[in-house]
Amino acid sequence: MIKGSAGIVTTQIYHHPSPLRLESGETLSSLTLAYETYGKLNREKSNAILVCHALSGDAHVAGFHEGDSRPGWWDAVIGPGKALDTDRYFVICSNVIGGCKGSTGPASTNPATGRPYGAKFPVITIRDMVNAQKILVEYLKISQLYAVVGGSMGGMQVLQWAVDHPDYLKKAVVIAATGYSTPQQIAFNEVGRKAIISDPHWNNGDYYGKALPSHGLALARMVGHITYLSNESMHEKFGRALQGKDRIGFDFSTDFKIESYLHHQGDTFTKRFDANSYLYITKAIDYFDLTRNGSLTTGFAGVKAAFLVISVSSDWLYPPYQSQEIVSALTANEAEVHYCEIRSNYGHDAFLLESGQLNYIVGRFLSHTIVRDVMITDVQTIEEGTTIAVTARRMVSQNLNHLPVLSGGGQLVGIVTSWDIAKAVASNFLWLDEIMSRNVVTTTPDEPIEDAARKMEEHAISALPVIDADQHVIGLITADAISVLVGRGNP
Amino acid sequence: MIKGSAGIVTTQIYHHPSPLRLESGETLSSLTLAYETYGKLNREKSNAILVCHALSGDAHVAGFHEGDSRPGWWDAVIGPGKALDTDRYFVICSNVIGGCKGSTGPASTNPATGRPYGAKFPVITIRDMVNAQKILVEYLKISQLYAVVGGSMGGMQVLQWAVDHPDYLKKAVVIAATGYSTPQQIAFNEVGRKAIISDPHWNNGDYYGKALPSHGLALARMVGHITYLSNESMHEKFGRALQGKDRIGFDFSTDFKIESYLHHQGDTFTKRFDANSYLYITKAIDYFDLTRNGSLTTGFAGVKAAFLVISVSSDWLYPPYQSQEIVSALTANEAEVHYCEIRSNYGHDAFLLESGQLNYIVGRFLSHTIVRDVMITDVQTIEEGTTIAVTARRMVSQNLNHLPVLSGGGQLVGIVTSWDIAKAVASNFLWLDEIMSRNVVTTTPDEPIEDAARKMEEHAISALPVIDADQHVIGLITADAISVLVGRGNP
Repeated sequence: MIKGSAGIVTTQIYHHPSPLRLESGETLSSLTLAYETYGKLNREKSNAILVCHALSGDAHVAGFHEGDSRPGWWDAVIGPGKALDTDRYFVICSNVIGGCKGSTGPASTNPATGRPYGAKFPVITIRDMVNAQKILVEYLKISQLYAVVGGSMGGMQVLQWAVDHPDYLKKAVVIAATGYSTPQQIAFNEVGRKAIISDPHWNNGDYYGKALPSHGLALARMVGHITYLSNESMHEKFGRALQGKDRIGFDFSTDFKIESYLHHQGDTFTKRFDANSYLYITKAIDYFDLTRNGSLTTGFAGVKAAFLVISVSSDWLYPPYQSQEIVSALTANEAEVHYCEIRSNYGHDAFLLESGQLNYIVGRFLSHTIVRDVMITDVQTIEEGTTIAVTARRMVSQNLNHLPVLSGGGQLVGIVTSWDIAKAVASNFLWLDEIMSRNVVTTTPDEPIEDAARKMEEHAISALPVIDADQHVIGLITADAISVLVGRGNP
Repeated sequence: MIKGSAGIVTTQIYHHPSPLRLESGETLSSLTLAYETYGKLNREKSNAILVCHALSGDAHVAGFHEGDSRPGWWDAVIGPGKALDTDRYFVICSNVIGGCKGSTGPASTNPATGRPYGAKFPVITIRDMVNAQKILVEYLKISQLYAVVGGSMGGMQVLQWAVDHPDYLKKAVVIAATGYSTPQQIAFNEVGRKAIISDPHWNNGDYYGKALPSHGLALARMVGHITYLSNESMHEKFGRALQGKDRIGFDFSTDFKIESYLHHQGDTFTKRFDANSYLYITKAIDYFDLTRNGSLTTGFAGVKAAFLVISVSSDWLYPPYQSQEIVSALTANEAEVHYCEIRSNYGHDAFLLESGQLNYIVGRFLSHTIVRDVMITDVQTIEEGTTIAVTARRMVSQNLNHLPVLSGGGQLVGIVTSWDIAKAVASNFLWLDEIMSRNVVTTTPDEPIEDAARKMEEHAISALPVIDADQHVIGLITADAISVLVGRGNP
C-alpha cells in the first residue's frame, strides 16, 4: 500500500440560499460554508467520509494548497493508502460555523448592518455546527455518509451527528472526546474567554479594522496549549532547559524553553485566528452535553452507526474515562462499539500526532465493510412476465444497468442487464423470461465486501442483488462501489 | 486530647538591622519580616516548629486576629491537641520575602527612592526566603528547629532548609511538593505572569496608588485555582450546574456555577494580594530546582533531618510521583524518610483541607520523639574531687540546676544538684564526693521520650544525663523540656 498525498487542493465555498435556524432560537440569515474534498465520490455516493475539526482547525484537513510547504492539519491520516484512503473514500471537511476560516462566523458581515457581526453573532452550538455540515452534505447530493470522523471538538460533532441524524451515517469515529463538557474543561475555556474579554482591544467584540485583542487571545491559546500537552511530553521536550542563556536570569525575561514555546504558540495563533471565534467556539464546547435526564445512555437512544471510540492514555483534558463513558452508554443502547486507548505520552494532542496508531486503528475500522454498509436499498426491480420493451424502457428511464427480476410473490427469480437486452434485440426475443439469467449470483447483508467482490470477479458480473432469508431483494451492490472500497481501482 | 484554638494572635514585625544578600548576587538593603507565633518556647528552645506558607499564604497560619471570625489558613492542624500541638510546640510562621503580607516585597518602600520597589524589587528565590526565615529564627534565639513543615511552595522551603542548613532542623514535613519545578508547573505560572504583565494597569510594575492590574491578577488566580482542584472534586462540587438560571443563556454571561466560582476566586484575590508579589513568588517557584548535575540524590547530599513526605492521590499539579522522587533521593542518602499518600479527591488543595488525615499522620510523626531529638548536647559537667565551693560557682555562673560528675576518664560517676549544694552547706561538707548522688538514673539517645519522662517521674528527678555505651555523657534532658513534648503541662 503506497501512502501518498491527497495532492493540491483548494478550499471551496458554498453559499446556502436559505437561513439557518439555530438551537438558541435565533436565525442565521446568511450561511456560507468553506469546505474541501479529497478523492472521488462514487456513483452510488456511498463512499463519503465527513471529517469534523477541533477548536482551532479549518476545512484544510489534507493535501496542499498551491504553493504551500505544509499540508493540511490531519494529512497524516488522509491520502492514498492512509486510514482515510482517498483512493477509496470521498473525504469532506468544512469549517465550522462560528469559525474564522471561511464559514460564517463573528468576523463575517452582518447583512442587517453591513458590518462584521462581532459580539452580535448569535451563540452557536455543536448541534448547529452539525446542521450546517448536513446542509453542505445535502448540497453535495449525498444522502448518507459512509463515516463521520473527528477528534476533540470534532469528536463531539461526530456524536452529535449520530444522535441527531442516526440514519445519515454508517460509521462514527470519535477520538479524544467526551459526551459532555466537564467543569474543569469549562473552567479552562472560561479563563481563555476572560483573557480575551479583559483585553481592552477586545472592545466588546468590535475590533475589526482596529487594534486586535492579541494579548488576550495569545493568553487563551497559551492556557489551551498547556492542556493539550501532557506533563510527560513537556518533560521530554523541554525539561528545565533554558532559552538562549546559560543560567537563570534573575529577571522577568524568558528563562525557560517552555516559556518561549508557549509565547510562540500564543503569538502565532493571534496571526491566524479571530478572538471572537475563540469565544464562540469555546462556548459551543461548554454547552455540549449529550446526557438526557442526567444519563448518557438515554442521550444516545436511537443511534444506529457502528462506533469506533479512541482515547489517549496521557490525555488529561479529555481523559480516557470520558471515552469509556461513551462506550458504556453506546453499548447499553446495543450499538456496535469498538474501543481503543492509544498508548501515547503526547497528551490530548496525540489525536493529531499519533499517525501510526491512528492509521492502523481507524483504517481497519473503516475498511472492515460488510455488504450492508455499501448496498443500495432503493432497488429498482421488474416482475417476471414483462416484455423486453417495457424492461428496456425501465432501464433507460432509471439509468440502470441491472434489474433484478421478481416473482409475483416478490422473490428473486432472475436478473436482467442491458447486455441481455442487446442480445434479445439481436435474437428477436420479445419476453423477458427468454433472456434473463436464472442462476443469479447473490449476496447477503452480512457478507464482507471482499467476498462479494470476489464473487463478482469470478462470475464476471458487475452487480449482486442482496437477498434476505426469504429470497426477497433488500438491496444491490455494484462492482463500481465495491472495487473502490476494497482498494482495487478508481471509481 | 482536646482539640482547641491557638486563640487570639497578632502579627509581629521584625526589622532586621543588616542587609540580606540574595542568591542573585543582589542585596536587599532593608529587611522586614512579619511573623506570628503560637504556644511557648521551652527553656531549652528545643520545641520550635517553623511553618512555611504557599504562594498566596501569609504569617497568619492559626488562631484568630482580634475581631476576625475566620482563623488562620492552617488552623485545622495547629492548636492545642492538633498535629502542631501548641501545648507542646512553639509554632512560628513568617510571611515570605517578596510577599505582600508584611514582609519586605515589591510593594515595600525602596530605601533608595522612597517609593515602592515595584519591578525594581530584586528577583528572589526559595533559598532567599529560607535565609530570611533563618534570620528570624536566630533573632528568636533558637539555634535549632524541632521541625520545619510546609505544603506546596511551603514544602519547597522545607526541602531548601534541609539542604542548606542540615544541622538546623531535626524533622522535616514536606507536603504536596516537588524537588524541582517541572515545565508544566512553569507553564501555568508563566500564563499567570503573562496575564498580569499584559494588563495595561500593570504599567511596568509601577501601579501603587493608581489603578491596579486587577484583571490580570484575577486571571492568574483563576488559572492557578483550576490547578489546585481535581477534575473529580470539580465534578462533585459543581458538575454542570447552572448559576442563577434554569437553562443555558446562549450569551456570554455566566452560565455555569464553576464559572461563577472562578470569577469569585479571581476577584476576591485581587483584594488581598499584590500583583507584583504574584510575579516574584511564581518566579521563585519556577527557579526552584534542588537537583545537582541532574540528580536529586546528589542535591540532597548531606541532609540530616528525619523526613515525612506526603503526597495527595488526586494532585495533578504536584503529582505523587514527584513526592516519590523526593523519597527515593532522600533514601539514597540514607536519610530517615516516611512517605504517605493521602487518599483525597480534593487535588492539590487537599494539603489545606484534609485535616483529619494530616492531623493523624503529621501528629504521629512529630510526636514520635526519642531522647536524641530533644537532648541538650552542650552539657556542662564537673570532675569528681572538686570542692563544693567550685561546684556551686560553676552552677551559678552557668545558671544550671544539674551537673553530671565525671571520673578522670570522662565517665559518669554521679550527679549533683543545687539541692545537694544546699544540703552540703547545712551539713558543713566541703567536698563534692560527700554529697553527689552516685546511683545516677540515666537514659540513652534512642530511648523514647515517654520512657525517659516516666523515669524522671518515678525517681522524682528533674534531669537525666544521656550516656553512650561507654558511659560517656553525650547529652542531658530536663523534665521541663520533656513534659511539654509529651503533653503533660506547660513549660
